[in-house]
This record gives sequence, C-alpha cells and structure tokens, in this order.
Amino acid sequence: MNTGDWLKEVVPDDAQTEANRKTAGHVMRLVSKEAGKYPDVVGVELGGSYAKGTWLAGETDIDVFVKFGRGVPDERFRRVSREIGFDSMVDYNPGERYADHPYVEAAVDGTVVNVVPCYDVELGEWKSAADRSPHHTRLMRERLTENQRNDVRLLKRFLKVRGIYGAQIAVQGFSGYAAEVIILHFGGFEGAVREMANIKLGATIGKSARKFDTPVAIMDPIDENRNLAAAISNRNMGLFVLGCRELAYNPEASPFDARSSASSVGWDNVAVVKFGRGDENSEIIWGQARRAASAMARQMELGGFTIIRHKVLVDDERVCLLFLTESVRIPERVVRVGPDVLRQADAAKFAESEGMVWVSPEMRLLRVEKRAHHTAGALLRHILRDPGRAGIPAGLHHHIRRGASVTVGGRIAQSIKEEAAELVSADEAVFYAARRAGE
Amino acid sequence: MNTGDWLKEVVPDDAQTEANRKTAGHVMRLVSKEAGKYPDVVGVELGGSYAKGTWLAGETDIDVFVKFGRGVPDERFRRVSREIGFDSMVDYNPGERYADHPYVEAAVDGTVVNVVPCYDVELGEWKSAADRSPHHTRLMRERLTENQRNDVRLLKRFLKVRGIYGAQIAVQGFSGYAAEVIILHFGGFEGAVREMANIKLGATIGKSARKFDTPVAIMDPIDENRNLAAAISNRNMGLFVLGCRELAYNPEASPFDARSSASSVGWDNVAVVKFGRGDENSEIIWGQARRAASAMARQMELGGFTIIRHKVLVDDERVCLLFLTESVRIPERVVRVGPDVLRQADAAKFAESEGMVWVSPEMRLLRVEKRAHHTAGALLRHILRDPGRAGIPAGLHHHIRRGASVTVGGRIAQSIKEEAAELVSADEAVFYAARRAGE
Repeated sequence: MNTGDWLKEVVPDDAQTEANRKTAGHVMRLVSKEAGKYPDVVGVELGGSYAKGTWLAGETDIDVFVKFGRGVPDERFRRVSREIGFDSMVDYNPGERYADHPYVEAAVDGTVVNVVPCYDVELGEWKSAADRSPHHTRLMRERLTENQRNDVRLLKRFLKVRGIYGAQIAVQGFSGYAAEVIILHFGGFEGAVREMANIKLGATIGKSARKFDTPVAIMDPIDENRNLAAAISNRNMGLFVLGCRELAYNPEASPFDARSSASSVGWDNVAVVKFGRGDENSEIIWGQARRAASAMARQMELGGFTIIRHKVLVDDERVCLLFLTESVRIPERVVRVGPDVLRQADAAKFAESEGMVWVSPEMRLLRVEKRAHHTAGALLRHILRDPGRAGIPAGLHHHIRRGASVTVGGRIAQSIKEEAAELVSADEAVFYAARRAGE
Repeated sequence: MNTGDWLKEVVPDDAQTEANRKTAGHVMRLVSKEAGKYPDVVGVELGGSYAKGTWLAGETDIDVFVKFGRGVPDERFRRVSREIGFDSMVDYNPGERYADHPYVEAAVDGTVVNVVPCYDVELGEWKSAADRSPHHTRLMRERLTENQRNDVRLLKRFLKVRGIYGAQIAVQGFSGYAAEVIILHFGGFEGAVREMANIKLGATIGKSARKFDTPVAIMDPIDENRNLAAAISNRNMGLFVLGCRELAYNPEASPFDARSSASSVGWDNVAVVKFGRGDENSEIIWGQARRAASAMARQMELGGFTIIRHKVLVDDERVCLLFLTESVRIPERVVRVGPDVLRQADAAKFAESEGMVWVSPEMRLLRVEKRAHHTAGALLRHILRDPGRAGIPAGLHHHIRRGASVTVGGRIAQSIKEEAAELVSADEAVFYAARRAGE
C-alpha cells in the first residue's frame, strides 16, 4: 500500500494547523471567561478530533467541553451550559443543537465550534452521554503516536468516501473515536486494513467483558461494556470489510476511490413512502424513520415481496422511506406447501386455513391462496392505514395519518431519485474484493 | 359405516352371475379346444376378477390364461398364444393388445374376454409378467371369504369413483389385485378404511423382505420382494388415504360420492404443451409422456415457477402435457441470498457468478439476476428446443421436433379444458377429512 502518498492528501499543512491553533485558543478564552461566572463549572477543556490531533484537513470541528461537578442537578446543568454557550459565542451566530442532550454550535472564522457540557466524573460513573469524551481525549492524546494520528486521518477519509463515516443515526457509520480505536488496536492504517479484510464473524476488537451480538465488536478501551459497533449498521460494517478487502488485494485500489457503480437495477422496482414531519429533533425522526422502514420491510417480506434494500431520507419538511424490491408486482396467488398427507395431525392443522387444497405429485398438501395484495403499492397503503400494527414507531403515526403518499417506479420524483441514487446502484466493490479474497 | 346398504350397489345379482357363468364356460371350451392342438400348452384356466369372484356388477372382464411349459422359447410362446387367441375368438372380433407382452382381446355377448399366455412356474421362478396371475387367483380363491369378496367389490368402486382404480400408467392407481390384498390384510372394507385413514408414513401392508421407498408399501402375499404400491403414484395414494379419512370421520360420506369440487383456480395459470404421436404402444407413450411432464415440471421449478400439478392426456393422435402453476408469469428479476460478508471464502465463491451484488441490511451478499425466462410459455418453448437436456425421454424427441405447440391460459382449447377439468379443481375432500382426522 502506498500509505506514504495517501497520507499527503489527509494531513493538514502548517498554515491550516496554525490557523486552527489560533481559533482554538480564542474559543477557549471566550468560553473560559463565561464559565468562570458559575461555581458549578469545574473546568473547560478542548476535546474531539482537534484536541486529539486527528482532524481531517479542511474539516476541523473544535469541541469545547464545559465540565460540571457531579452534584449539579440536570436542569441546572442544561440551563447553565446553554447560557455559557450562547454568551461566549454571542458574536458567532450561536444555535442550539441536540445529541443526547443539548449543546451550542457556532461558526468562528469558518470553523464549526461546539460548546458541549459534561460532568467531571471518574471512569464508569457516567451521568451524561458526553462524560466519556474527556476520558477518550486523554487516552488518545497519551497513546496515539504522531504517525498513528495521521493514519486515523487516512482511515476517516477512507470511511467518508464510502459513505460510512459518522455515528449519527442518519448514517449509522463509524464515529471518529471508533476510527481512532481501530488504528490504536491494529497499530496503523495498513495493519487495520489487512486485519479487517480477513476478520471473522464474532470477532472482538479490544477487551470485552461480555459477548455482543454485532458481527464484529469494537470495544471502547475505557469501558469494556461498551461496544462502539452497536451504532454501526451491519450493512456498513460489511461495506467497510469489503472496502478493506479491495484495498488489501487490489494493487490499483485507492482509499479515496469507492468506485461508483455503473450497475443499477433502475427505479422500476422501487416503492417510496412519503409523509410530513414536525419540528422534532432530527436524530429522533431519523431513528423513528429507520425503525419504520425496517418494520415495513418486514411486513412486505411477510406479504411475499423480496426487499433488497431500504433507505431513509429526512429533511426539514418530510420523511421518505424507499424500498428496493425484487419486483413491485408479484403473482396474485401463492402456493403454500404443507405436510405429507400421511402426517395426519399436521395435515389436519394445515387444512384449517382458508384456501383451496391440492394433493401434490409428492403427496403433500398444497394450499393455493389469493394474496391480499400483489403490488407493493397496495400493500404499503394497507400497512399505512394501521401503522401501529405494522410496528411503525408511535411518534410517526400522526404524521402518517395526516397524509402519506406511496409512489412506485416511474412516477417517483426526480429529486428523490437523485438524492437516493445509491439505493439502486450495486455495491460494485464487492465483486473484485470478494473474488480476490477467496483466491 | 352403512356397509350393508353400500354392498347392495356393487354385488352382481343372480341373473348377471348366471350370464357370466355361461359366457365363461363357453370361452373356456373355445380356448381349450384350440390349446389342445399344441403340446407346449400345459393348461388353460380362468383368472382375474371373474375367477376370484371379485368382479364389479356390470363390469365383468373374463380372463383366460393359457399356460405354457417353462421350456418353451419366448418366440414360440408369443406365436402359439397369438394363434390360440385369434383362432378361439375368431367369431368375436379378436384383436391384439399389449401389456408386458401381447395378448388377445375379444368381446363375447357384450363381455370383454382376454386370452393371456403365461408360463406354468413355481412361486418366484417367474419368466413372464403374467406368470404370477394363476398364483394370485389360487391365493384369493382359497383365502377370501364370500363377504370379503363383496368388500373387494365395494373397495374397487370406492377407488373407481375417485379416479384412482387401475394399475395402467395412464392412471397409476390401485390394481384389482391390490384391492384384494388390502381387503385380505385388513379383513374387510370397514377395517381397511379405518386403518388406511390413520396409516403412517413408511408403513408396510403385509410381509416385506426389504424397505421400499413408497410412502406406504403394499406387499404381494406371494412375493415379499414385490411392492404393489410401486405402480401407484404418491398423489393417488394420498387421495386414497384422504378418501378413507372422509369415509371414516364424516358420517354423511358415501363411498360412491367423491364430491366433485366447486373450487377451481381457473385456466389462467395453466400451460399446455401439445405434440403429435406415432403408432407406438399406448402404454409406452403414456410412460414417456408422464416422465416428460415430470422432467419439464422440474425444469420449470428450477426456472422459478411453482407447479401445483401436472397432467398428461394421450389419445390416438396427440400428447398433451398440462402444467398448473402458481403463476404463468413471474418477476423478471430474482434475488439470490448469499453468505454473510464475513464468511470470506463463501462470499468470494458467491461473487463469482454473473449479476449485480448488494450488501443487505443483515450484511449478507445479495445477487440480483435477470431471469432467462419469466413467462411459462417462453421457458417451455426453450425447454422444447433441447428436449434431451431437460430429461424428456428420447422416444418423444422426434415427435417434439416435428412440431410442439405451447399454449397458455385463455388460449387453451375448450376440448382440452373439458378433458382435463379436474386439473384445476381443488381436491375438495381434503378439507373435511383432513380437518376431522386431526380432532
């Protein structure tokens, strides 16, 4: 692997580094000044990829953590951190954002700045979701070598190009911290790629207190009960492994090129469900929409359709659930193969259901049933009439009841087709990588 | 069961019996006279259902067996028996027929008479297929009581009404001898029905020297290596068992009423292959046509179609193969589900085939393939272009090459629809019988 050449693309140059250093110092002063007004605050420190030296060239975020004493009540924790964030960033267009709890985002000299509250606690005594971050920062600062920091950058770019970087639910990919853990564990980018190319089902990266049900577990080095891969979809883990195989076995492969696929099944066999949304937190809507898509895909499979993939699009106004099927139209009748006639109790049970029964040439009972719905559109409309029964999260029911549309094949809007183009494109890298890996 | 009432319907009255007795005596005299001219013939005797007293009222066949010494060569056996048959029946419109070997058929006073040659051999030393018959006749004459003979008649009618009486390949049902063996084994009609209603997979009726692969074995009492059920299709065995359940569990059921079914899937999903035939023996054509239908059904299943039943029609001029499918039109694309991405060797093997590959939400490889044929008509035409590859018996190839037609759904000729109406009708009795049996 030409890791040396590749690194040049991802390591920030001196001018960038110097500019970031200045911005970070400026922000720290502003936040510290405001934080000093509150006795609840026990410290302010830089965190995230900037503090760990693993940020990607041209894509710096500066995270400032405001640390509270562990006795501060939740309500005050939220209110004070909000005041510190808005007051310190008053000149930089501050706004409230939400992860597990609210934080303040601003833009300083073109750099995104996040002012994030957390509790100052010992390992394992977590009170809020961000409490681990200062510990993560300390660990990576201490343990990552200079070369490894750059290898983290390369890995992040590799993930980003493949659309699998980011732990947010809209992506369900690898967090920056997961990338750092992978590099730390395998010692570098090349080692990580070669090992991940050959990783076995059920493998655990790091030290784990128990067994996790993800195909591969990525353990948080500061918490042997926390599996970072829990936030990564299985599909994305699969794409990562295939990407690693490609890079490991194809001398012409590049971490910066995910080979956009020329193969596509086209939109004929896609069904789209669209409905409006409210002003709920986007992370929440994304989570609900993903669960809805999974639940509806399961119902469609039960109804006789084969779902190749499903995908969710969420913007400020609407939610789209996209289903790529083997076919949006299936035969009207379905044959259920029952037991051998001579298996008497089973045969009696089988004959209880509605439908015409035949005796097959092999002496089995066959029931011919008329499907309730033989087009994906009809089945989806049916599912949407009773969203609870299908397992669609309750938070979406009123949006769906206010009006959900179902569109199939050629009638899908061009804008959706453009936004979700990857849905219908084959995962091309699979071919080369999967083939070579077996040689 | 009202066996008493039912028996009245099947036992011939005195006038019939007397008429048969006269015809049989007359025929025996005619055949014996001709047979006396040949020293190769060691005896002439009555056989079949008449001799055993198990013929059905109004449906007597009289079988006369001409027994040859075991040293007579095959060629002479055939020639002499043919001469005896034609000469003795000269006034009764004799004609040659074929089972395993040729015999002569004639019509005497409205009764069908068969003059059949066989070798006079000891048990197990069979030379021709008919050699067992005199032994069968002797056994049933000795062992069946008067009541059991009438119960055989009732069972034969029961089988006949259900379309499963007759060992010829066009029917693949129960021979008269099999019906006798069943009554002899279970002691009577009611016992046979009750036992067969509850028979288990793998059961053997009688004494067997080895294991047979029919769902139920019916052993020939004079040959523990001969399974009479080998000539019975599994479907017909299934229909028999279901018929027995109906009679055993439904107090209103009658052995004379097979409940013609009101339920039908219609002809939309039927495909018919038609081609001409030559003047080959019909039994041979039937056998080839059945094997062809099975082979083609298998190919259609491999091609993604679901075959509910297939059926063969043969007349003097043509062969029709009928296929009842779940749908004659299936989706153009098919998704093959492959291994988990992390099962590296399997994944590599899976990716070798043609087609677009996806990574599923569950991290499995999926291949989307375009089917070669997505209508039953197109696939059947494809199969017929290379009949050998599909496993169609060689004897039919030239008939198919001379021109085979494929017709689907609405365009199927009315005459075929009438002749094969039962193909699309559900096996109605299944419902009641199968349900009750499980209570």
